[in-house]
Amino acid sequence: METQVNQATFITNQQVLEHWQGHRALTRRVIEAFPEKDLFTFKIGGMRTFGEMVGELLAIAGPGVIGLATNEWKALDERDKSQESKEKLLEFWDQATEVINEYWSKIPEERFQETQSAFGMYENKGYASLLYFVDNEIHHRGQGYVYLRALGIEPPAFWER
Amino acid sequence: METQVNQATFITNQQVLEHWQGHRALTRRVIEAFPEKDLFTFKIGGMRTFGEMVGELLAIAGPGVIGLATNEWKALDERDKSQESKEKLLEFWDQATEVINEYWSKIPEERFQETQSAFGMYENKGYASLLYFVDNEIHHRGQGYVYLRALGIEPPAFWER
Repeated sequence: METQVNQATFITNQQVLEHWQGHRALTRRVIEAFPEKDLFTFKIGGMRTFGEMVGELLAIAGPGVIGLATNEWKALDERDKSQESKEKLLEFWDQATEVINEYWSKIPEERFQETQSAFGMYENKGYASLLYFVDNEIHHRGQGYVYLRALGIEPPAFWER
Repeated sequence: METQVNQATFITNQQVLEHWQGHRALTRRVIEAFPEKDLFTFKIGGMRTFGEMVGELLAIAGPGVIGLATNEWKALDERDKSQESKEKLLEFWDQATEVINEYWSKIPEERFQETQSAFGMYENKGYASLLYFVDNEIHHRGQGYVYLRALGIEPPAFWER
């Protein structure tokens, strides 16, 4: 897919992919920074564990890109990767990285300005769905930063991707 | 500024503005949700108060858009809006909303694919600087959510903009 860059281009599709994968590399380092036990048990204020939040991110990322590529959306399946080990969670993370890279190039370039019902539930233009996936990851990762700080652990630098 | 929408457009400049202002409206509701005292005193794990984080966001948002519009960058000035009242912080927030709307239309459309040194320090393409402003806000707002939960306060819904 050749993406046309003209004066009006805010960001190219390829730059969006790199931006997201940069964020995902940072989120991976945040998962790694958690002691295994705390990843699945530590929480603040009745919120979920960071492991459970990562389970949600995994349910969205790969299936979300497949949905954008194929326009066939399955219901969100958050069935719990969160009870797995940290090693397993990182393995799922890396698998999603591959799925995203593979299906990204199959997203028709007009898809991002078309309206779809993401996961059969969230009616939005493609770009808004994709940004929601990324923003939701940043949101929960920011919460993971607080958990790490509360545990006395220095999180990875936010600006490194 | 007429923005060309073609098949390859991921997002138009106008959609970026609306996306960001949607996030900023949510962040405003998060500020409002804090009891005034906690906004300037409550913290977890040695982190800053949410009021201080909002001070950082204010130092970035308006001046950042002015920098993108004029390509004249001043150093980041985080001088402390955080010691002000909640009312004052919300007033600064609303002023920034106006500044962003005003200067957005003055950003030359090629600027987002040009490299600048944002705030004289952060060398990046314009779109990457802008996304950094937004992502940094989502990141710290996510931390504000944890603070609110720890205080026993239900935060505003993440998906409402």
